[in-house]
Amino acid sequence: MHLPSSLYLLFSSSPCSSHSHFCTKTINRSKFSFLSSISLALFMAPAFEDPNVLEGQTQSSSSPQRYSNPDDVSRKSKVTVVGSGNWGSVAAKLIASNTLKLSSFHDEVRMWVFEETLPSGEKLTDVINRTNENVKYLPGIKLGKNVVADPDLENAVKDANMLVFVTPHQFMEGICKRLVGKVNGDVEAISLIKGMEVKREGPCMISTLISEQLGVNCCVLMGANIANEWLKWRLLVQIAVEKFSEATVGYRENIEIAEQWVKLFSTPYFIVTAVQDVEGVELCGTLKNVVAIAAGFVDGLEMGNNTKAAIMRIGLREMKAFSKLLFSSVKDSTFFESCGVADLITTCLGGRNRKVAEAFAKNGGKRSFDDLEAEMLQGQKLQGVSTAREVYEVLSHRGWLELFPLFTTVHEICVGRLPPSAIVEHSEHKPRLSIVESSIQYY
Amino acid sequence: MHLPSSLYLLFSSSPCSSHSHFCTKTINRSKFSFLSSISLALFMAPAFEDPNVLEGQTQSSSSPQRYSNPDDVSRKSKVTVVGSGNWGSVAAKLIASNTLKLSSFHDEVRMWVFEETLPSGEKLTDVINRTNENVKYLPGIKLGKNVVADPDLENAVKDANMLVFVTPHQFMEGICKRLVGKVNGDVEAISLIKGMEVKREGPCMISTLISEQLGVNCCVLMGANIANEWLKWRLLVQIAVEKFSEATVGYRENIEIAEQWVKLFSTPYFIVTAVQDVEGVELCGTLKNVVAIAAGFVDGLEMGNNTKAAIMRIGLREMKAFSKLLFSSVKDSTFFESCGVADLITTCLGGRNRKVAEAFAKNGGKRSFDDLEAEMLQGQKLQGVSTAREVYEVLSHRGWLELFPLFTTVHEICVGRLPPSAIVEHSEHKPRLSIVESSIQYY
Repeated sequence: MHLPSSLYLLFSSSPCSSHSHFCTKTINRSKFSFLSSISLALFMAPAFEDPNVLEGQTQSSSSPQRYSNPDDVSRKSKVTVVGSGNWGSVAAKLIASNTLKLSSFHDEVRMWVFEETLPSGEKLTDVINRTNENVKYLPGIKLGKNVVADPDLENAVKDANMLVFVTPHQFMEGICKRLVGKVNGDVEAISLIKGMEVKREGPCMISTLISEQLGVNCCVLMGANIANEWLKWRLLVQIAVEKFSEATVGYRENIEIAEQWVKLFSTPYFIVTAVQDVEGVELCGTLKNVVAIAAGFVDGLEMGNNTKAAIMRIGLREMKAFSKLLFSSVKDSTFFESCGVADLITTCLGGRNRKVAEAFAKNGGKRSFDDLEAEMLQGQKLQGVSTAREVYEVLSHRGWLELFPLFTTVHEICVGRLPPSAIVEHSEHKPRLSIVESSIQYY
Repeated sequence: MHLPSSLYLLFSSSPCSSHSHFCTKTINRSKFSFLSSISLALFMAPAFEDPNVLEGQTQSSSSPQRYSNPDDVSRKSKVTVVGSGNWGSVAAKLIASNTLKLSSFHDEVRMWVFEETLPSGEKLTDVINRTNENVKYLPGIKLGKNVVADPDLENAVKDANMLVFVTPHQFMEGICKRLVGKVNGDVEAISLIKGMEVKREGPCMISTLISEQLGVNCCVLMGANIANEWLKWRLLVQIAVEKFSEATVGYRENIEIAEQWVKLFSTPYFIVTAVQDVEGVELCGTLKNVVAIAAGFVDGLEMGNNTKAAIMRIGLREMKAFSKLLFSSVKDSTFFESCGVADLITTCLGGRNRKVAEAFAKNGGKRSFDDLEAEMLQGQKLQGVSTAREVYEVLSHRGWLELFPLFTTVHEICVGRLPPSAIVEHSEHKPRLSIVESSIQYY
């Protein structure tokens, strides 16, 4: 091996990952095993069969030891998932499979469920706890018997010291208000929520909202949302299919906490990496949905892959520029992470934002997003449309509208001020693309 | 407008673009015209109608003045395109539409054609010059009457001072040898060729080969290859479709030359930007085809968009790491350019490398690439397969195989040493992904 001295730095510097034994910068020389994957058995009943098989892969050398003494139970971390939609249920399932295997966590994962009465007359939480399935938002998937649905928010969080927030973002301000003074002093939080609160004084990221309202440290986890594909996987049950997804944890300072989150979410088929850039990671997860709307317009107008790729690239640049303007701490490298380019690609190829935007463009903008959402999403709202509005408010307030033509145009199209074709609009003015094109310092 | 002092730097720094009036860092405040596009009339007969319409958009303030004096003719640049395949013919057409409009270029564009006898018994060059179409490689498209096909390589280049190389990369060494001492002393070259020559002493980029053999400066142009989509566009002739593509010029030092190339290739529907990073741009164009092979395997195995996006992201990282290891001058920012992420997306969504690799995986690797290429590509060869072999040779020679698991695995699959499913192979060894995952300095 002829390794230049810079090589180890080139390849090893992320402070932690799902396979943090590599953080020691020793290179595992095994061949052709670069993608962790999952056997069908593991996929269908993750990790219940042989807890030890996976533990070696997800537990780093610096992680807490397995507690053989029952007295140590009090030191175990207890996890509550706040939210129980599609992605929230998948997160609960992932976490629950790991808490069973990792000795530093309590087995039980509590999941706060916004209570609903089902058509059968039963309460949703009762059905989840009886059948072990979220029959409304993740039907047909067993969550793990250690997932306990709880309709009482305060009760759900009272014993937890690790809180996973995964609700629609517009509910978070209200949820935080209800939780003030109700969470443990040593609680650590993570947000899986995309979007931001736009206030008069500026945009407020969800992680900041949680931190400030509850007085806790808050990481974020963003990445390809596997929820949508999860259901499809079930159809492939007869096939020994191997596939994997990725996500990125953004943390502020405490690397040990980041490692805890990485362990809690990682599985052999869900690779989680941590980077020290909360805002960058969170804004990637948030802003990609605006780009996906643009990509959907391109699809609806049948402009082909070259145009779509160009729009995605311009979108990625605006994501980066916007993030760095708002937070100078944001790192370029974050946009090469799973939360950046990979999640953007996934979202622009297959996400629901793209899909509804495609339908919007196919209809020439004559049917509103509200209308199409109601028809196509069974009550769910598109994050991209609301994020585009929020971003527009920020840009407008700061006088930056003209610097972000893609973000600006997406919003103007969404609200009907411009036709979908404006995404590649011809104009008598000079094209402004090159403003955003340019780069030395940041691009 | 509340612009922080860093804002202009953030948005304006690329030294030149197709709209280089923005290089002055003044911001055009027109709204919603960020994507230059093309009217159907312009698309079908680019720029023959009204030369002045486009000139304002493609000529920078620093560009040479229009020569009103016939004596100035001698100062005009004369362009020869060396190569006449699909992409070469498109390039000739693009250039020919611009030389008619831009006063600093001779109208005539000479195109060296590897002579072939057509089934009709006619010579290919005769047919091109009679019909103004490359009936073999770009049938049905008028190249422009100022394109002159020439079967004599030496004759084709003898008066040129701007040479555009666009042949299959394996022919370049022979072509260069034939051209030694035959080109003008002041000639400027640009390579549109993907691939590299791997020699015992290390990899040799095509631009370096041209520079060293001919003693000339050589830029590169890489980006979404519009050739494949071009034919599809014709089918849309009835529809007033607007679409656009992008490309990146990589230059070494001389920004004026880069501006010349940008002007020569730019149209309202083909946005060209220049960056000072020849090797980065060239390696993007070359290495993306290896990633496209991997993406094709994922498609053939029907693993879904999440997996494909993850593979593309890992591929982009290996592209970046490989490029930076070979050339320390390579810039991170280049991978955010059109030649990087946008071209990668286009190629992994729709290119022929992806398509044949998909078929290869669907057949479980039982039919060779040679076999599938012969059936699917009508005599053309896949660049990704040969580039994967070349990259493998470099990695092997330097002892880096294990550091580039994706590149390595693609080659091993291509030559039948591993099954297509190895692209996400499960292994008893620890996954090695995290080696490449990691990042601080370079990622």
